[in-house]
Amino acid sequence: MEIIINPDRYDWKEISKRTLIDTSQLDSLCKEVFNAVGKLKDHAIRQYILQFDKVNIDNIEISRDEITDSVKSIPEELKNAIHLAKDNIWKFHKSQELIPNIITTTQGVECWQESRAIEKVGIYIPGGTAPLFSTVLMLGIPAKIAGCKEIILCSPPDKDGKIANEILYAAHITGVDRIFRIGGIQAIAAMTLGTKSVPQVNKLFGPGNQYVTAAKQYATRLGIAIDLPAGPSEVLIMADETSDTSFLAADLLSQAEHGKDSQVILISTSQTLLNSVNQIVYKQLEDLPRKDIAGQSIQKSKLICLPDKQNCIDFINEYAPEHLILSVKDVDFFTSRLVNAGSVFLGHFTPESAGDYASGTNHTLPTNGYAKAYSGVNLDSFIKKITFQKITEQGLQNIGPAIELMAEAEGLHAHKNAVTIRLKKIKSNQS
Amino acid sequence: MEIIINPDRYDWKEISKRTLIDTSQLDSLCKEVFNAVGKLKDHAIRQYILQFDKVNIDNIEISRDEITDSVKSIPEELKNAIHLAKDNIWKFHKSQELIPNIITTTQGVECWQESRAIEKVGIYIPGGTAPLFSTVLMLGIPAKIAGCKEIILCSPPDKDGKIANEILYAAHITGVDRIFRIGGIQAIAAMTLGTKSVPQVNKLFGPGNQYVTAAKQYATRLGIAIDLPAGPSEVLIMADETSDTSFLAADLLSQAEHGKDSQVILISTSQTLLNSVNQIVYKQLEDLPRKDIAGQSIQKSKLICLPDKQNCIDFINEYAPEHLILSVKDVDFFTSRLVNAGSVFLGHFTPESAGDYASGTNHTLPTNGYAKAYSGVNLDSFIKKITFQKITEQGLQNIGPAIELMAEAEGLHAHKNAVTIRLKKIKSNQS
Repeated sequence: MEIIINPDRYDWKEISKRTLIDTSQLDSLCKEVFNAVGKLKDHAIRQYILQFDKVNIDNIEISRDEITDSVKSIPEELKNAIHLAKDNIWKFHKSQELIPNIITTTQGVECWQESRAIEKVGIYIPGGTAPLFSTVLMLGIPAKIAGCKEIILCSPPDKDGKIANEILYAAHITGVDRIFRIGGIQAIAAMTLGTKSVPQVNKLFGPGNQYVTAAKQYATRLGIAIDLPAGPSEVLIMADETSDTSFLAADLLSQAEHGKDSQVILISTSQTLLNSVNQIVYKQLEDLPRKDIAGQSIQKSKLICLPDKQNCIDFINEYAPEHLILSVKDVDFFTSRLVNAGSVFLGHFTPESAGDYASGTNHTLPTNGYAKAYSGVNLDSFIKKITFQKITEQGLQNIGPAIELMAEAEGLHAHKNAVTIRLKKIKSNQS
Repeated sequence: MEIIINPDRYDWKEISKRTLIDTSQLDSLCKEVFNAVGKLKDHAIRQYILQFDKVNIDNIEISRDEITDSVKSIPEELKNAIHLAKDNIWKFHKSQELIPNIITTTQGVECWQESRAIEKVGIYIPGGTAPLFSTVLMLGIPAKIAGCKEIILCSPPDKDGKIANEILYAAHITGVDRIFRIGGIQAIAAMTLGTKSVPQVNKLFGPGNQYVTAAKQYATRLGIAIDLPAGPSEVLIMADETSDTSFLAADLLSQAEHGKDSQVILISTSQTLLNSVNQIVYKQLEDLPRKDIAGQSIQKSKLICLPDKQNCIDFINEYAPEHLILSVKDVDFFTSRLVNAGSVFLGHFTPESAGDYASGTNHTLPTNGYAKAYSGVNLDSFIKKITFQKITEQGLQNIGPAIELMAEAEGLHAHKNAVTIRLKKIKSNQS
């Protein structure tokens, strides 16, 4: 790992830069696939599945029987683990519900917000050897709490046309309504445009490779909302003399194994600590099944020594990490000054993998510095807040003249008139 | 206006279609301007101001003196109106603050959200003859409540290089930090990329013409967040036998005067009511200064007769109006079934223009059916919700085994190891 000692503030921006995949060259491919799906619908989807996934699919949709089979196939122990995670995720996201609060801004003028679920949401889950069923929980559970009417899920089929049992099981217990064996750009196109088999959705969620990322970006131009702009996963750990260096090494590696473009950063005021962690990381790396991937991302990762705590928190805010582990004694110093981060893990016994699976927080978070402007996925991601207002005759008499003056000053006389005509009526009723 | 009687449900989607300006052909112009501003910075901006606004600008930034002058120039009566509006907008948005709520999901596992302001936000206010100072209030006030550190505003200069006094005044009293006389694509480019004069921001807000819309879309590809996808303003009014037809006509026209592409729809179960409103609209139109604009948009607008209340609310949810006026007796029937809308106005004395200026709700709202997936601007638009979690040794013992099982099932052994290494340590400490 690269060790950087007291970098100049001027260089922080450069140090914070992530390696991003430019998906703009996939634009024309997206256009082609979206056009084909828009025109030939399910027929196009089957063609693309044959072309990209090398499998001939009759039923795009997963049947009841397949779901029942998946339930039987999961070991009882894993089922219990998934249910523990589900309960925690449910509790935390349920606590985020909006409680309507009627505000009287002026006597006779009441304003409030109410939340309504986004009606139709689509969840994309990548395929591959490791089935990311935890992401099904992270997206399906808040969608269910929000009250989304139709929750659908797409995931690419394997060479036998199947989706991993763990994904089917997680979808089943969270209440996903329909599951489709479609991956890649064609999955995003199907959910964006709708076909006979696949319903059109209002918002798309979930991670994916560069093709899926490009397709989600393309979908936004057609008016579909997406959860978050995508980027490789990342962690920044802040450590001090109270940290356990073997914990730090394990946390760095747990992020590094996600992919070879994962970003891993450790900062501290102690160079000795950084050197020590650097050694332990390579020792722990040896025992990992995903040693190749983790090794590549560790190679590019950074250990940064900064002169004091203030410099450390300033760097954290500049970097705006997706995951921030505060493995320090004086947690409050950092949290009180923290501005930019996705999800924060406090203390020595709060590993990031807890938030990935089972603590209750969401693991779909802003990467690539997007934490400067975006929240991670939470219950808000599945609802809209609609504003309501109710004005009495007295209320309109209280604020009407101000509206008339402002509308006139903006040159909008019909806006003014909508008030004037009512105020006149109120007066004539009173006399 | 077009009167549509009992349209087939199959045709609702077509009826709900908005006229949208396709800004994709402005992509190359955006690219050109963004590249120039990225390279030549303030110099490029001055060049574009000369080219597009036909004025030679020395100081891009508005001076303290100009702001002081604007304060003097506003009539006392209008100042009072603006302050009444400010107070109401402040009260309502202040009530939206997140109250941290620590949730113990499992014994020893605490999760919560805290909000942090987006540090730097940019507000765009269009120029032209009618200064939209109300939008300054709608965006500046929640930014201030959120605690944004730097709030900047760009608005195009008039032929004398000035920005309307009302805009300067509204910016001054809401606490906008810096104001720049820049409009169009170059304003969005400056706030996206930063120059010597103009700071780079994290998120862009505000309405604009097709150039600004295209530029905001372009900015998102460079990682800058924006408030909402743009579209022409619109209102849908639901009326019944208790409605005052002259109020309805005035409300329709108040929306129609925004622009010739504004969408105005009135629905009712009574054809007689629709016919009557149609006549009054044209009568009221005669007296409007913006008769030309309002006339053009009214011409394309629709009066729709539907068989019963259930059909009406179904149509409303399909249309997903930016503004919804429920000018009906049985308001609860509609609000309880309402799913998609931006802002809702209840009863006969709640004109939409109240929400545009002074009731307290925000007027930056989702158009073009985006209310199916987006909320209007509210306090959330200026903050991020960061999740925090704190796990004790006991807590990790409670959820750790579940994390280990799930991580292993996903093939992520380093994730598992981050827990295992800690559980071992806890055990060895205990023995």
